[in-house]
Amino acid sequence: MDQKITTLAALTQHYRPQIEAELTRILDHESTEQTLQQSLRYSLLAGGKRIRPLLTLATLLTCDETITEERLQASVAVEMIHTYSLIHDDLPAMDDSDYRRGKLASHKQFGEAQAILTGDGLLTDAFSVLATSGLPANQIIELVDRLALAAGSRGMVAGQVIDMEATGLQLSLVELQDLDRKKTGALFHYSVLAGAIMANVTENQRQHLADFAGKFGLAFQIYDDLMDEQAGTDEDEGKNSYAHLLGRNQAQQVLQETIAEGESALDAVPHADLLRSFLTYFKG
Amino acid sequence: MDQKITTLAALTQHYRPQIEAELTRILDHESTEQTLQQSLRYSLLAGGKRIRPLLTLATLLTCDETITEERLQASVAVEMIHTYSLIHDDLPAMDDSDYRRGKLASHKQFGEAQAILTGDGLLTDAFSVLATSGLPANQIIELVDRLALAAGSRGMVAGQVIDMEATGLQLSLVELQDLDRKKTGALFHYSVLAGAIMANVTENQRQHLADFAGKFGLAFQIYDDLMDEQAGTDEDEGKNSYAHLLGRNQAQQVLQETIAEGESALDAVPHADLLRSFLTYFKG
Repeated sequence: MDQKITTLAALTQHYRPQIEAELTRILDHESTEQTLQQSLRYSLLAGGKRIRPLLTLATLLTCDETITEERLQASVAVEMIHTYSLIHDDLPAMDDSDYRRGKLASHKQFGEAQAILTGDGLLTDAFSVLATSGLPANQIIELVDRLALAAGSRGMVAGQVIDMEATGLQLSLVELQDLDRKKTGALFHYSVLAGAIMANVTENQRQHLADFAGKFGLAFQIYDDLMDEQAGTDEDEGKNSYAHLLGRNQAQQVLQETIAEGESALDAVPHADLLRSFLTYFKG
Repeated sequence: MDQKITTLAALTQHYRPQIEAELTRILDHESTEQTLQQSLRYSLLAGGKRIRPLLTLATLLTCDETITEERLQASVAVEMIHTYSLIHDDLPAMDDSDYRRGKLASHKQFGEAQAILTGDGLLTDAFSVLATSGLPANQIIELVDRLALAAGSRGMVAGQVIDMEATGLQLSLVELQDLDRKKTGALFHYSVLAGAIMANVTENQRQHLADFAGKFGLAFQIYDDLMDEQAGTDEDEGKNSYAHLLGRNQAQQVLQETIAEGESALDAVPHADLLRSFLTYFKG
């Protein structure tokens, strides 16, 4: 069955329900404190696309590995980190967004204090999910190290601080790329790397997968900026974005180039149709 | 040298400088983003008593173990978690405190958004510190698991939510103890447990040490409440506290009983003078 999955759509259809089930199972073992349990559930089961765990699973399948229970559990830790980052991003002191995924943001639904704590809880619990996954010890340790590095003050958190400081200023293209590599790219990079770590691939193979992850992350951000510009969100607040910096047409062109580079990065990876299909995400 | 340390004062004198040096070393490897580096440093090197890492080191020494570089590195992860929790606690949406350890709170010094992110960064990086400690793999995994459990949505974060919800309400003594076991007790319990894990003690010995940690944590909270009541802080805001619930005299009496129970828990632990001396902290 697994061998036949060669598209993001098929992967999503088969594995998203398993990811949802895994997140639900994890939540059942989380806090017995009722309102906290409620707010964890509210944000974590809000129906995201689960693109990060899907990237991990796709990398495993690309390396001809099976999706065991241990690997499925480990794959969702990054989704918990992603969800915490959205909750904290939406806070009044940060992006001050009232809505997320068509529902009230956590702080509008549960109040600011509980939203901060819910984010803190998800962030912390993600490491528990890795530690108790039952994977080989060396893999757990590398996953913990890489996830903390991607999400922490050398990764996503640094990207957020740079983004905040740059609001209202005009970044150069190089600066914007550095910002995005940290702010959104680091978790995508981790997601692919997590699959490579669990598949125990060669250093050479890992490098090709990392290159793909970097291009995927960059394409994701440009695409996201273009969507936001279309919807008319980010620009008012002086947020830096590719659409803003390059103009719509040139941003579109850089996106197409980045997609092509992502495809090239996979040339040296056998049976990479499934990972390649992730790039079609940006073509619609 | 290590064998001769039998008091908290001597331990502090010898090891606090090493803990400070370790935290400084870790910070040097953290974010290269300048303002984030500054706010991490501001809070993490603000001169706390370092009682949590000292508890870990004391447990190791009690078990006749030496303090290697690997163990020293691992011992400070809990201090990073503790520091993040103070930064987030002080936020306007939480306890709204303008000062911490005689300095402006992080959000007053760097703004709310950066304070949130600095807390997020410290929390995340703590797991990196464990993962890269160089300890045996099984110990790293157990430390990550236990720290995430103690700090996450079944531990400290749950305690915070309960505390928030109970503000203005009158808790029973049992409820207040449950709150404190999570809110402050969980990290103390972890701190002792971390020493026991690294010393690889018997299950029986671990239980005695855990009992001591539980009593220490409870005594710490009662003592803290009594100090706050004396300083006239918590009461106005309807915060639950032992001083408030039991009255000053009875809280004092419960504190003395708890100290005595902490001492008894150590009866079955050989050479426990050093750990016992931690209880003198509350006698002054």
